[in-house]
Amino acid sequence: MAAERTSYDEKLTLILKTAAAVFAEKGYHRASIRDISRASGISLSGLYYYFESKEELLYLIQDHSFGTLVSNLKSLLAGESDPRRRLYLFVENHLRFFVSNMKEMKVLSHESDSLEGEYRRRVNERKRRYTDLCTSILEELRAAESGASGDPIPTRLAVFALFGMLNWIYNWYRPGRDIPIDEMVDGMVHLFLNGYLGGAVPALSGEWSGGEGTPSIWRR
Amino acid sequence: MAAERTSYDEKLTLILKTAAAVFAEKGYHRASIRDISRASGISLSGLYYYFESKEELLYLIQDHSFGTLVSNLKSLLAGESDPRRRLYLFVENHLRFFVSNMKEMKVLSHESDSLEGEYRRRVNERKRRYTDLCTSILEELRAAESGASGDPIPTRLAVFALFGMLNWIYNWYRPGRDIPIDEMVDGMVHLFLNGYLGGAVPALSGEWSGGEGTPSIWRR
Repeated sequence: MAAERTSYDEKLTLILKTAAAVFAEKGYHRASIRDISRASGISLSGLYYYFESKEELLYLIQDHSFGTLVSNLKSLLAGESDPRRRLYLFVENHLRFFVSNMKEMKVLSHESDSLEGEYRRRVNERKRRYTDLCTSILEELRAAESGASGDPIPTRLAVFALFGMLNWIYNWYRPGRDIPIDEMVDGMVHLFLNGYLGGAVPALSGEWSGGEGTPSIWRR
Repeated sequence: MAAERTSYDEKLTLILKTAAAVFAEKGYHRASIRDISRASGISLSGLYYYFESKEELLYLIQDHSFGTLVSNLKSLLAGESDPRRRLYLFVENHLRFFVSNMKEMKVLSHESDSLEGEYRRRVNERKRRYTDLCTSILEELRAAESGASGDPIPTRLAVFALFGMLNWIYNWYRPGRDIPIDEMVDGMVHLFLNGYLGGAVPALSGEWSGGEGTPSIWRR
């Protein structure tokens, strides 16, 4: 039984990895189960043993990604109480995970609207929990650093600025050609920590002179 | 002649706006010219007076967006020499533009791989110039602030961290429900400036204990 289970898991792993690569390349809506059959070398009927529909397959990719990300993070945070170290571990876990899984990262980012109904609800719940974890780390940090001066940056803005910094890497980071991952983690933590905890920047704003408040993209 | 030209431009504006909304909603590959005809109320032959193919339409959206973004930025920067104010204007221009054009933002982000050949080359050239502008602002900033201590953050990382922070807003920012745009601009500038110019953060890294260096997404 144990051996069968392992073999089942390994084949599912291969299918999900291959499907993520195909979805990242062609986009979810254009990709077919036939494409995934071709890329994985598994017959159509072999594939449908593991899922019932293309939508279930997309759900499995998203569900496994967030599930793994959060469960890895929880083990890392379990023994750590220092808020700065907790932020560091959050950033390190996120970046290491997605540098190793860039295709999945693209699928999570581009196909978040492609799921519907119960699948969507479940993935959104996972995302919400992950966002809450990040929010609580930032709140602990602010509480611990009473020295910070000036108006604090709104937490919601800080959380999504951090996610943006980290998630954007699939657009530019090339492993092996860019800086090593540990230097990227250090740089991102440095940038975010100083930014989030640093004192207020002297007022730099002026009267907006770029045209109307909601400029049309097409008017020059 | 002048009146004809204006009417041509206005209709093209309407077409590009509508097409961006349709592409953002359905994805470029699934959307048809018929969808755009339905949404804009312009006949198919009327549409093909303005472009020759769906790909040219996608190109026009991307080209106009980057063109407007860069030309607005250049006028704003023209009279300003203070590096911090220049950064502020860069962030303000980028955020104001995309908050007013969220559909275009999604299309630029999700469909950057959908163009090929000459169209792709031209859009990439526009992007490269915009990235270069941002890079030079960050380099001026660093040169002007000799007080910064510690190892500086690599400029390439800082540039793309900033783009990530700014571009991610289409995933979370809801005009009217979230903070007003001028507060978002202040917060992002504050976060980035302190982060980029702040001193080195004391070492926080430890031995990575989250598993192998390139963890598979599927292994728990």
